[in-house]
Amino acid sequence: MELLQIEQAASLLLQQDWILLLCHQSPDGDTIGSGYGLCQALHQLGKHAAVICTDPIPRKMGFVTKGLNPSLLFPPESAQFIVSVDIADVKLMGSALSVYQEAGKVDLAIDHHLSHKPYAKRLLLGGAAANCQIIYDLIGKMGIACTPAIASCLYLGISTDTGCFRFSNTEPRTHQIAAELMELGANWFEINWDMFEVKTQAQLTLEQEVLKTLRFYCGGKAAAIVITQELLAKAGADYEDTERLVNTPRSIEGVEIGATLKERPEGGFKVSLRTGETVDASQICAVFGGGGHKRAAGCLIKQTAEKTLNLLSKEFEKAF
Amino acid sequence: MELLQIEQAASLLLQQDWILLLCHQSPDGDTIGSGYGLCQALHQLGKHAAVICTDPIPRKMGFVTKGLNPSLLFPPESAQFIVSVDIADVKLMGSALSVYQEAGKVDLAIDHHLSHKPYAKRLLLGGAAANCQIIYDLIGKMGIACTPAIASCLYLGISTDTGCFRFSNTEPRTHQIAAELMELGANWFEINWDMFEVKTQAQLTLEQEVLKTLRFYCGGKAAAIVITQELLAKAGADYEDTERLVNTPRSIEGVEIGATLKERPEGGFKVSLRTGETVDASQICAVFGGGGHKRAAGCLIKQTAEKTLNLLSKEFEKAF
Repeated sequence: MELLQIEQAASLLLQQDWILLLCHQSPDGDTIGSGYGLCQALHQLGKHAAVICTDPIPRKMGFVTKGLNPSLLFPPESAQFIVSVDIADVKLMGSALSVYQEAGKVDLAIDHHLSHKPYAKRLLLGGAAANCQIIYDLIGKMGIACTPAIASCLYLGISTDTGCFRFSNTEPRTHQIAAELMELGANWFEINWDMFEVKTQAQLTLEQEVLKTLRFYCGGKAAAIVITQELLAKAGADYEDTERLVNTPRSIEGVEIGATLKERPEGGFKVSLRTGETVDASQICAVFGGGGHKRAAGCLIKQTAEKTLNLLSKEFEKAF
Repeated sequence: MELLQIEQAASLLLQQDWILLLCHQSPDGDTIGSGYGLCQALHQLGKHAAVICTDPIPRKMGFVTKGLNPSLLFPPESAQFIVSVDIADVKLMGSALSVYQEAGKVDLAIDHHLSHKPYAKRLLLGGAAANCQIIYDLIGKMGIACTPAIASCLYLGISTDTGCFRFSNTEPRTHQIAAELMELGANWFEINWDMFEVKTQAQLTLEQEVLKTLRFYCGGKAAAIVITQELLAKAGADYEDTERLVNTPRSIEGVEIGATLKERPEGGFKVSLRTGETVDASQICAVFGGGGHKRAAGCLIKQTAEKTLNLLSKEFEKAF
């Protein structure tokens, strides 16, 4: 694996055509914004480029396809150069992209996760808050003018990966790029409204129902909510609607460990942990075979809700 | 009234001492950040400066007093130069500052509201998203180094007045200044956490109770919630806790007019309206003797909740 500087990655891409961009499974704004932003930029140069992903683009991010040039798209089998964006581990490509998981299949990985496990022939790695920051700089180095549609893609990734400039990964450079993307015509207001403000009635009902399940542990220093399939059905909500709730328990005053249990259709609970500075979320999740970051981690516990909460609460007590 | 350029305001302030800074009543992050940020900056120059406000500093903003130099504070009656910050109308000074409401009492008003009604001898007016942006530029023109404590004050104002870079008033310059304040050591993560994320259990309970009052009008295009004194007491919440709820009705998918009714202790309802692009909130509020901006306005209706909702819903129907 060859580690590239941004100038090298830019000149390498300028030499290619029929470029296929891979996004990670369960796509978020950063992988979608990176893929479609870069694809549109390559179209600006008249290059053939296309984006694929195991899962569909989330409904609210549909705008990212608007700036594509249909005559420069192509089916995956015609690809001559494969680039992954925001994919830290080959496993995260998902089932539909399994053909690209073999060693050496990906020509270039562009990623911002410092935990990146190399799988591509070449790697452009930055420690930026969002992968879209790297794509922004890369497009600049390639001499491509950033259109309003590209700027919107990149703003989407930056805004969602930083929780709208609130998460601890936010850097001064994040704000500098946001300022430039605004100048370039990014549709920033609507993006933030759609991603952070607007709620469906189903989401609102779900929120109310889920808050009824709130329980405290360790004298109020830990809290958990449980989202069952039954609750989802009752609220008329789907799995995507649960995303915003993940931060709720931790955001209660005094809570250092916040846990969200989401029941899977096939049984068992996906646990998302959020912690304050004093507790390592990834250590707790590792007990159950999971992992992640220090302040945000996850695991899967194949038990009933009661048993899952029991197992977790014992680890919470040990953590303090 | 003399309209000043920022350089003129800077050199005027440099000539003064015993400077008293006035914040508006029911203070928000922008008036508090402006007052305490500028006060600390003046202390950096060894000048006597102090801040006063009719109402106390909101609990979560208490950090703004940390960087003050106690030996340069003074009682209001010793003031030799009076400066108002973020006060668009002399009426907004509130009861405790009524002595400064007389014509010509204020030497300099620094404000960012383009609706500013002149009352001071001199005015420094900018159209910035937050008054703290103007204070930041002013401090720079005065040649004062921005300490981490000053940077935190100014970040507070910018972040709160733009809803953490989400409101339509956000400009590229807002992000540029945010980037610079981060570099200067602003405590940005904790500020955003305290202002936007953390909730008390009382706030959480209040939210749940208030959502039960949600009603729709005009086929779902308008929505209203009602916060009674009884609800506040039941949740153990106070008036400050209601602030975040004001945007809730409007943020429901399909809702163009969102109304929040807050019962006053003395009876009647303070109505806050939030609207989408197609409806002028200030026009609806004007019917009831209120006013404000196109997308955010308020009025007072001295009726029962039922009657207030009735009166409002008729205006909602007219607005579509």
